[in-house]
Amino acid sequence: MTEETARAFVPGHVTGFFSVHRAASGDRAKGDILARSGSRGAGLALSEGVGVTVSPAAERSLRFHEEPVEMSAPMRVLDRLGTSARVEIETELPLGTGFGVSGATALGTALAANAAFDRARTENDLVEIAHAAEVEAGTGLGDVVAQARGGVPLRIEPGGPGAGELDGIPTATRIEYVSFGSLSTAAVLEGDIVGLTEAGERALTALCEQPTIERLMHSSRRFARDAGLLTSQIETAIEDVLAHGGEAAMAMLGETVFALGTGLSDAGYDPAVCSIYPPGAALLD
Amino acid sequence: MTEETARAFVPGHVTGFFSVHRAASGDRAKGDILARSGSRGAGLALSEGVGVTVSPAAERSLRFHEEPVEMSAPMRVLDRLGTSARVEIETELPLGTGFGVSGATALGTALAANAAFDRARTENDLVEIAHAAEVEAGTGLGDVVAQARGGVPLRIEPGGPGAGELDGIPTATRIEYVSFGSLSTAAVLEGDIVGLTEAGERALTALCEQPTIERLMHSSRRFARDAGLLTSQIETAIEDVLAHGGEAAMAMLGETVFALGTGLSDAGYDPAVCSIYPPGAALLD
Repeated sequence: MTEETARAFVPGHVTGFFSVHRAASGDRAKGDILARSGSRGAGLALSEGVGVTVSPAAERSLRFHEEPVEMSAPMRVLDRLGTSARVEIETELPLGTGFGVSGATALGTALAANAAFDRARTENDLVEIAHAAEVEAGTGLGDVVAQARGGVPLRIEPGGPGAGELDGIPTATRIEYVSFGSLSTAAVLEGDIVGLTEAGERALTALCEQPTIERLMHSSRRFARDAGLLTSQIETAIEDVLAHGGEAAMAMLGETVFALGTGLSDAGYDPAVCSIYPPGAALLD
Repeated sequence: MTEETARAFVPGHVTGFFSVHRAASGDRAKGDILARSGSRGAGLALSEGVGVTVSPAAERSLRFHEEPVEMSAPMRVLDRLGTSARVEIETELPLGTGFGVSGATALGTALAANAAFDRARTENDLVEIAHAAEVEAGTGLGDVVAQARGGVPLRIEPGGPGAGELDGIPTATRIEYVSFGSLSTAAVLEGDIVGLTEAGERALTALCEQPTIERLMHSSRRFARDAGLLTSQIETAIEDVLAHGGEAAMAMLGETVFALGTGLSDAGYDPAVCSIYPPGAALLD
């Protein structure tokens, strides 16, 4: 039972479309409500992700490439595991632009802290802790469960393990992306989400009728338009990719376009390149 | 919609303990009964596994390292997907000795045939098809769902996706194994499984109280003894590893011993070496 440094890798995740589902409170305990809340939707887990290192320390801290950063969800994870640690994250992904860095940090912190402090929690426990922390922090509703699974996760029912239900589209391909800037997940989630959720439900129904990556991209484009989330810069980039015979969509929630294969470079953009990442989050040796 | 060759990799899987659960027939359809039947238990997904290549062909065939072999489950998978194909498998794992080669072949055939024939099935659909084929063939009850998940899968509730429930112990370590010979899964499953199932349920309860890899090995040793499956050769090898401070158990069902870390080499054996494989089964590019 030694306390030592542990590391985890969690893939990035771009959501193409989603709907918001908050569990009714009734007489449920708070933790149960968080575990049953989440999103339906679909997205891609990416080979670019977040490396998370957890080391026992007298004071809790979170550093990103050596610099202190504020993130609520991973600190809540340390709370829930009853641990005090220094958390360091490394990633090539841009923050706040729809790649699920917050969810990845929360999940990586759960996996690595469990190992560093010998907490003997199961994978489902750790995913649920990270999912509930994200929901409570208001920074995400579906990234954590998707990042735990990997590949092209379909969030069929909302919530953490036990409550939610996942499926996946079995495929792996090159992915390109360009980020123009940030959108606040919290601001969108605090806004009017009725129309957004209706659009997300329609997109999931359409995808389940023909669960292919091409249909996912098509459903995602329609969702972004129906939910009123398209910016003009995103719209132009998507149209450019389509005009060159490619497939592109907007990452929820960031001013980010992602494309299959060489979609963005064929259209004259200078994208970052990665691929769909079939394995889910995991401890590193 | 071109038909072309596709490939998948599926990890090997050693089961440490299990209990047998067959869904009551009632007025259920046959496919539903197969999907709800399976095993509870725990095991390890291994970095050594089965590469499966599926190519459209006028006649169905299955070849292992170029030689024709008979395996019922993968042929049933081709049936269920309405496809005719040549299936070729490659593996370093010994056949019939408890590494889930049959389940891996069934699951890899499902993943690769779906891609080769553009069947647009989801991951859960394909896992269910392979699981049902294994159950119907009588060659396994839990390997397929464990191989789809990867890592150290706990089969909390029996059956395919939707019916069954999985969890996992988050760990990754070196694994050593030695195989002395085959045991027939079908013969054991056709035998008296009441005592075996009671022993398996006790082992799962004990593991869930302290879900660590060390407890898994301990519960597995007790199960092998209680279920009357230990052979003298296996018993000797396990005792040798324990005497050298290691952790070892018997693979269900084969005359195979697996050990954590350098357990078998420390005890003077000449084992094959691999590791726990956190990713589940996946298509290859």
